[in-house]
This record gives sequence, structure tokens and C-alpha cells, in this order.
Amino acid sequence: MIAMQTNPMLQQLNFLREIDRLKSVIRQSPLLDQSRKENSAEHSWHLAMYALLLHDHAHSPVNLMRVIKMLLIHDIVEVDVGDTPIHSGASPQDQALQEQQAAKRLFGLLPVAQGAELHDLWCEFEAASTDDAKFAKALDRVQPLLINVATNGGTWAENNVNLEMVLQRYGPIIERGSPALWAHCEQAARAHFAAKA
Amino acid sequence: MIAMQTNPMLQQLNFLREIDRLKSVIRQSPLLDQSRKENSAEHSWHLAMYALLLHDHAHSPVNLMRVIKMLLIHDIVEVDVGDTPIHSGASPQDQALQEQQAAKRLFGLLPVAQGAELHDLWCEFEAASTDDAKFAKALDRVQPLLINVATNGGTWAENNVNLEMVLQRYGPIIERGSPALWAHCEQAARAHFAAKA
Ligand SMILES: [Ca+2]
Repeated sequence: MIAMQTNPMLQQLNFLREIDRLKSVIRQSPLLDQSRKENSAEHSWHLAMYALLLHDHAHSPVNLMRVIKMLLIHDIVEVDVGDTPIHSGASPQDQALQEQQAAKRLFGLLPVAQGAELHDLWCEFEAASTDDAKFAKALDRVQPLLINVATNGGTWAENNVNLEMVLQRYGPIIERGSPALWAHCEQAARAHFAAKA
Repeated sequence: MIAMQTNPMLQQLNFLREIDRLKSVIRQSPLLDQSRKENSAEHSWHLAMYALLLHDHAHSPVNLMRVIKMLLIHDIVEVDVGDTPIHSGASPQDQALQEQQAAKRLFGLLPVAQGAELHDLWCEFEAASTDDAKFAKALDRVQPLLINVATNGGTWAENNVNLEMVLQRYGPIIERGSPALWAHCEQAARAHFAAKA
């Protein structure tokens, strides 16, 4: 059995090594130049940039620092359980349970107070229980939607997703966090499918 | 000539599309599993996580939000000019000039006030003119140093970099921002080269 690390800095550096694997978790969405699929680490960076630039468009005023923290860590559980695509049809209950176990293990590597803060933020994001989390969740839908529009359908084309499914799967979550961003996204999605028809 | 976009949200979304290319800028450092080289987008995510976890170890108290903003944007100019490795021997003056032009172009895509804020933060990071920037710069050296130690020499082995060069190229910048992190990094570097000898 490996002795638990009790020096805070060494615990933190160990966690930072552990999450390096997020760079190898491959998502469904392509890069905009379609040279390859996006990984969850660079996706998390991109979402933090979305928050930094777009927070004034949130439905309600948000705490930018909390939103960015949530987005930086929101996919970290994929280090243990991988990415579950929105169009995969996987059992949400099984997935949630696995992700909860991964969150417990990973945030448990950190000094207790710090691990608890980040674990709480991760749960808040998952539950979309606050305005900050609702906005963060909205951005996590906006980014792949706009990738799909910009790449001639992207994962929609691969999964036979039509306009009705887009409005249903992305609409409520984006609109709840940012009506202004949803207005743009809905228009972009409608124009995309109209051009295909 | 393309008409300048004047709707703030469209300017922001255009910028977010533009910086997608950071995911294709390849750095010298490998992933920890050595499956491939790291790109600048996932590197920026990792550094933001370093700041989030390690900010208590800064030399002087820092504003975490400002440090994270700097780290999220610090490499964005590479969208235009690519990554310049620390051991490359490129002319620092030429590189600085190119990066300044890239910063002007990229941040100039944003609404004026927002672009100016981020451009100022980028200049502050480059100049290391504040405690926030000094800590951010330190992390930007800590991460590749620890990657090299964890990957049996990484870019040091490829570039014939010895212990003296590591102490000289990483030491002052890391120690200025975080004596505690430098104490750990120096020990790790010395142990690495001692094991090689
Ligand atoms: Ca760089």
C-alpha cells in the first residue's frame, strides 16, 4: 500500500500530475480546422476563455472566478471515466455514479479543505444549482454547438441529429444560463439546417 | 476588405473561433505519458490549474483571478507566431516584436474595453511587472521543469541541457515568484541529474 502524501505542496503536485491524463481524453467534437478531435483539457481551456469573454451575457450576474473554476475542473472526472458524448444514449444514472466516485478519488488527493472546495464546486456544476453553475453549463453546450455549425455539422452529421433534437438537447440548458447566447445559437442552428435542407 | 464586426457578442465569438488554433500549436514538452508533445491550449489549462491549486505558495499574496486570466491568455499570440522554445536560442528582440504585433491584432478583435484589459494583462505578464505576473511567470517555468523531471529528461535530454543550465534558466524566474516551489523544483532537478551522472 502506498503511503498517503501529507505535505500539502506534494499533494497538489501529485494531483497536477494525475490530471495530465485529461489531455488524452478525446471528445466527439473536432477542432475548427477538422484536423483531429478535441481533447477535454484544451476544451476546458476554451470554455474558461468563453466565460472570461462572455460573462456579461449571463442571464443573471455571475461570479466570474467561480464560473472559471467550475469550467477548469468540470471534466476532471474523465481522467477516470472518459468522456460521455451528449448523443451517446448512455445511462445517465450509471454515468453519474461513476463520475461521483471519480470526483471523490481525485479531489481526495488534495489537502482536505482545498479538495472539499473543489469537490463542492464540481457538485454545484453537476447539479446546476446556482446562477454561476447554470451559466457554466450553458457555455459547455454553446461551445460544441458552435463547433458543429462551423464544421458543416460536426457530430450532428455523424449522429443523424436534426434541428428538433438540437433545439431540445441544447436549448433549455443554454437559454437558462444565457438567453442572449441562446438567441444567437438558435439562429445559427436554424440557418445551418436550413442550408442542408 | 472584410467589414469590421461591431456587435460585441459577435466580436467575442469571432475571437473565440480565432484562438481555436492554439490547440494546434505544438510545444517542446511531452505529455507525462510521452504519447505526444503538448499543445499550447492544454498547457494553458494546466497552468490555470497550477495557479488554482498553488497560489498559497506565491512569494507575495496574489490576486488569483488576475493570475488565472494571465495564464489563460499568455500564449494566445502563438496563434500568429507559434511557440518559441526556451532552449531554442531565437533572438528575443525579434520574437518580442512579433508577439507584440500578434497581441495587437488578436486583442484588437474584441470590444475595445475588453480587448484593452486583456492586452494590458498580457503586457503585464510579459514584463513581469507585478507580483501577480511574477507568480504566473514562475508557474510557466515550473510546469515544464516538472514534466522534464517526470519524463526522464524530456526536452533537456533532447537539447543537451545540464544542471547548471537548468538552475540558470529556470531558477531566478521560479524563485522570484515562489521560493517554496523553487526549493522543490531545485531538489527535483538536482536529484534528476544526480541519477543520470
Ligand atoms: Ca510559450
